[in-house]
Amino acid sequence: MKKVGVAILGLGIVGGGTYKILSEHREFYKKTQNIDVVVENVLERRKERAIELGVEPSKIVNDMAEICSNPEVDIVVEVMGGIEPAKTFVLSALNAGKSVVTSNKELYCKFGHELEKTAKKNNCGLFYEASCVGGVPIIRALLDNLQGNVFLSIMGIINGTTNYILTKMSNEGSSYSEVLKEAQKLGYAEADPTSDVEGYDAAYKLSILSSMCFRTKIPYTEIYREGISRISNDDINYGKKLGYAIKLLAIGKNSGSGIEVRVHPTFIKSEHPLANVNDSYNAVYVTGDSVEDVMLYGRGAGALPTGSAIVGDIIYCATHQGFNYSTFKNTEFADPATKFVKNFESAYYLRVCVEDKVGVLSKVTSLLGKHGISVAQVVQENDGTNGLQLIIITHETKENSVKKAVDDINATAGVANVASVIRVV
Amino acid sequence: MKKVGVAILGLGIVGGGTYKILSEHREFYKKTQNIDVVVENVLERRKERAIELGVEPSKIVNDMAEICSNPEVDIVVEVMGGIEPAKTFVLSALNAGKSVVTSNKELYCKFGHELEKTAKKNNCGLFYEASCVGGVPIIRALLDNLQGNVFLSIMGIINGTTNYILTKMSNEGSSYSEVLKEAQKLGYAEADPTSDVEGYDAAYKLSILSSMCFRTKIPYTEIYREGISRISNDDINYGKKLGYAIKLLAIGKNSGSGIEVRVHPTFIKSEHPLANVNDSYNAVYVTGDSVEDVMLYGRGAGALPTGSAIVGDIIYCATHQGFNYSTFKNTEFADPATKFVKNFESAYYLRVCVEDKVGVLSKVTSLLGKHGISVAQVVQENDGTNGLQLIIITHETKENSVKKAVDDINATAGVANVASVIRVV
Repeated sequence: MKKVGVAILGLGIVGGGTYKILSEHREFYKKTQNIDVVVENVLERRKERAIELGVEPSKIVNDMAEICSNPEVDIVVEVMGGIEPAKTFVLSALNAGKSVVTSNKELYCKFGHELEKTAKKNNCGLFYEASCVGGVPIIRALLDNLQGNVFLSIMGIINGTTNYILTKMSNEGSSYSEVLKEAQKLGYAEADPTSDVEGYDAAYKLSILSSMCFRTKIPYTEIYREGISRISNDDINYGKKLGYAIKLLAIGKNSGSGIEVRVHPTFIKSEHPLANVNDSYNAVYVTGDSVEDVMLYGRGAGALPTGSAIVGDIIYCATHQGFNYSTFKNTEFADPATKFVKNFESAYYLRVCVEDKVGVLSKVTSLLGKHGISVAQVVQENDGTNGLQLIIITHETKENSVKKAVDDINATAGVANVASVIRVV
Repeated sequence: MKKVGVAILGLGIVGGGTYKILSEHREFYKKTQNIDVVVENVLERRKERAIELGVEPSKIVNDMAEICSNPEVDIVVEVMGGIEPAKTFVLSALNAGKSVVTSNKELYCKFGHELEKTAKKNNCGLFYEASCVGGVPIIRALLDNLQGNVFLSIMGIINGTTNYILTKMSNEGSSYSEVLKEAQKLGYAEADPTSDVEGYDAAYKLSILSSMCFRTKIPYTEIYREGISRISNDDINYGKKLGYAIKLLAIGKNSGSGIEVRVHPTFIKSEHPLANVNDSYNAVYVTGDSVEDVMLYGRGAGALPTGSAIVGDIIYCATHQGFNYSTFKNTEFADPATKFVKNFESAYYLRVCVEDKVGVLSKVTSLLGKHGISVAQVVQENDGTNGLQLIIITHETKENSVKKAVDDINATAGVANVASVIRVV
């Protein structure tokens, strides 16, 4: 039976989950996969943490060099997060001839080109299923199942924290700041929630996934990004009445005119499969020219679901011959031939606070018309707090036209302000 | 660049879709996969059909031996369906050293052990992603992504015809026979719909998928099977009122006491992700000990979605080294050590037609109680056609207890009959 030695860098949530899965399933993998997976080392400064998890003291190390020089280690699992020292450690593991399994989306998003180059040079494997959407098997689905497709679009709910917050706000009517505090208490949101709530985390993942879909490097810096901190319960409720759910969507599209990539709060029809992805569940919805629509749904985070993705990569690495790398030129910057669409098309939800005067609605709609924006639906709402409001859903229109129309509407007599502008798919 | 020669056996719906994808994407696969995939032969008696699709006449053959002896053919795609001649052709291809990609669920379900043995002997690949759930990448997800999990259960909507019929009945109130006729007209159901509507097709797929999940051969003959032809619009409507959708579910569970496998119409809570899988869409929902819940959703049939799965296997076969086989002992019969649970546990929906007399409800519930069945919900309904009815949802109970209770209730004064018995998850 083949023996497979693993070293785990960092025993945090995901590292701990991975250790638990590997140690509890050792006999199961012998029986079902014909391999004996043994954790040979863990890199963890908090020695007591490792011992608590059941790691033999002799296997706990402080120095990456020990792991690189340990001939019993075949695969290094990097679950530290962040750029340094993770990057230096991964490069040194690859240069020592170890294959690497990582859950580090920021590292793979920003330096995937360099890691892959080093992996190729050393004829090592580089696996990153756990970097995107936890236990949801989207990476290998794109590489090994749907790879015959020309992808038209990818849309995902790929951040658990924001989906938890938006679901709670929608179901319970609590405010953004209330739910955020609760999420922080429960450990679903970090003390500094910026990376999640402002869409950085989703943008890293979208960069990785859309690069794979569209087979060209899409740096995260090309991704339009807007967070959820300005979403109000009023908007959620008005959207609900019109048949929409609010989600932080990561969207990539490849149209004839170029690639558009964006992360922003979005109203989505309540019948759409993504609209029913709630709480901390995640899902990715891809459309290919032959497979049509496929959605993969599951836990986007957590010790065991993300550990499942890591262990899947470890077993894959141990039971397959040879290594495959990206099926596109994995570079630092986008290929100069790649066109990015910034003035993208979308339908919009606008909430306009107005005075109760004859003719205001017609002024507003004529300003939209002036910018070529046609209206799909208008509802007048009057609530105690906000007074009279026009809720408008537009047909698909250009981003820039909406910006200009909003400026014009804000400057119109009888209009208090355009309180909300939310994209609609 | 590696050249990959393909032969397609049968240019029906799926064969035609596969040919179309391969021929239209040849340059794309050169660019993105670094392989040149060429259709070298098609086996098709209707020569004009092949020519219409654009196949060069010289490549159309009538005789499998020509394909086996063609050194340009590396991979044989079997999309004929049925057992013979498909089985003989697949075995001869493998014995000639060709790898095989098949969409044939009946063949793989019944003779997978023999095909795999022959593939191993000849060191050939055997791929069958397209045999289950069309474009939905469930097979490789189980093999290469979620393989680190001990699976607790698999539940799927894995037959498009029945899901189309049940969705139409639910949304439009049309009867089973009306919708079936319409589905036959549209080509969604076959002239003899037995295999779909009586659950045979779903049972073949469940046999394949549950064998993979539970890592032991589960012959389709072990699967309890019940079709949808007795489902009435009344039951659909009463279920809807109580918050349930009706689906033909394929269910596999591995509990401490054994494996249970079954295909039957099922009421499922309308919030469950599977309840929102409509029309001809399919989905598979698996629960593993570390990944928790994962659902894969997409087109379960159709020329291009199923073609996508076949082409995915072709590219996988051409771009990976070595071949892996089942991660369990693939045998003809179940391992004698495998225990199958026949008297399984489930909640139930019962519709009891009763006379409008005092005390009938209490008689019925006391008979349920006598058999250890506890009631979760009772509603009295009175409609013009059926008269007074008791709609009962039970807690989880044993199959055999329900059978006995139904016999007792049918024999009770004041009860016309138990009109429907439908399982609930």
